Amino acid sequence: MKVAYLGPEKTFTEKAAKELFPEGDLVPIQPIRNVVMAVENGKVTRGVVPLENFYNGPVIQTFDSLTRCNNARIIQERALKVVHYLGALEGHAKISRIYSKDQALEQCDSFIAANFPDATTIATASTAEAADYITREKLMDAAAIAPQAALLKSGLEIIATDLCPNNSTRFIVLGIEGNISTGDDKTILAIHPTIRDRPGVLADCLNIFGSQHINLEGLHSRPDGKKGYYFYVELNGHESDENIKNALQAIEYSLDSNHKHPDTVKVLGSYANSHWKDEN
Amino acid sequence: MKVAYLGPEKTFTEKAAKELFPEGDLVPIQPIRNVVMAVENGKVTRGVVPLENFYNGPVIQTFDSLTRCNNARIIQERALKVVHYLGALEGHAKISRIYSKDQALEQCDSFIAANFPDATTIATASTAEAADYITREKLMDAAAIAPQAALLKSGLEIIATDLCPNNSTRFIVLGIEGNISTGDDKTILAIHPTIRDRPGVLADCLNIFGSQHINLEGLHSRPDGKKGYYFYVELNGHESDENIKNALQAIEYSLDSNHKHPDTVKVLGSYANSHWKDEN
Repeated sequence: MKVAYLGPEKTFTEKAAKELFPEGDLVPIQPIRNVVMAVENGKVTRGVVPLENFYNGPVIQTFDSLTRCNNARIIQERALKVVHYLGALEGHAKISRIYSKDQALEQCDSFIAANFPDATTIATASTAEAADYITREKLMDAAAIAPQAALLKSGLEIIATDLCPNNSTRFIVLGIEGNISTGDDKTILAIHPTIRDRPGVLADCLNIFGSQHINLEGLHSRPDGKKGYYFYVELNGHESDENIKNALQAIEYSLDSNHKHPDTVKVLGSYANSHWKDEN
Repeated sequence: MKVAYLGPEKTFTEKAAKELFPEGDLVPIQPIRNVVMAVENGKVTRGVVPLENFYNGPVIQTFDSLTRCNNARIIQERALKVVHYLGALEGHAKISRIYSKDQALEQCDSFIAANFPDATTIATASTAEAADYITREKLMDAAAIAPQAALLKSGLEIIATDLCPNNSTRFIVLGIEGNISTGDDKTILAIHPTIRDRPGVLADCLNIFGSQHINLEGLHSRPDGKKGYYFYVELNGHESDENIKNALQAIEYSLDSNHKHPDTVKVLGSYANSHWKDEN
């Protein structure tokens, strides 16, 4: 089975794709939009992209790309614990510089503040590049934040482990077929109200979910570039459940009673709940 | 006046800080948390950090860092249009590789897909590094995405302009004093419900805003690492407005009627509305 994932190789997304598809024919593609489009256009059977990181928040490009699709949908989710290590050359001096990818530096900011308050942080293109750079340039006063394997591969010594507890990234699997209900599912929606800046437009939607006893797991607004907003909503339940069907109809009716805007409510996927946040 | 901004130098954040404080003593600090803490601890008078990018979405670290503060607050916002250019060496061949920072590559994904569908994209530590690299390595089949100034500084020729229309980043200014109402303000809140997974808990909050005729400009949920959520909410109005005061009291009472959790509702700032999204 041909599986596209957000490249490059040797990243957490590749690790997630390998865990999910140990027998798959894995193809790294960049950026996110191109992975989604490869699934949408049938060039691959599955796609794997990040949806949310515990420290960095939602990956809006994934939501946006899916919203533009007619075929590609979310069919599964999988969280991967992201464990960062600190590595330096053997016999290193006092650490005055810490190299890593900017997002890893952000994720480890509490660790750095507590343990290396005077160190300068320097962004590199990837965590692997940070480790390579220290070895290549023989920097004795520097350390790199990277996965354990990358540090060891560059010949660095591990000097601290698990720099950012709770850190995990939630990945999603994309496909073009729907899932049947498992009885413990989630549904992700894109809601695009045609009514702008009416106080309570979002509250009206959420009331409908509440009245149908549907629990909300997540919600993100983003400007649509036309003075309006998209709302990305994550619900407990499957799109084939009666209460979810009722809620979607009620919201469509509330926001677009004349059915002039077919993209007012769009299901981005319904799939088995991984309870990813409960594992933190 | 000493002004900390999210470093390094030569970034859009520095540009925003220079526009906001042309006479300021500007200090680059990394990561975001350390800029916020410099304001919180009185080491600087002002801080400038990104809050949201049109393509990449909210900067969750900024919201998270502010939520942990007792003193630092948002006192102003300023959007900066982010214009990306494509540059290559004079007399370049067919472009088969495009270098830039990963976020810039994501922001320009539509442009790349339409104009260079077969090009490989390669992430660099910064947009300036992408331009430098092409010049240093004399790559005739490569192009860099960067601000115009960075491309010209590296001696590259501009081959395409404004690769991602609508792109802007909203920056905020941090300080420790509050603002008085201007009559056209915004308020950003962090709501941390102590009640977990009750259907409708967020709808209850939003209903309170609706009943007080308060318009919602944005909303982001994020896991709190303890099976609960924070909700970051952006409202029209000033915290000293009667309807906002009433709403905050009602939400506190609804979520924490015994006043056991003083951090249930926290104002991250009230400041003049820049209407940033209307300028797109």
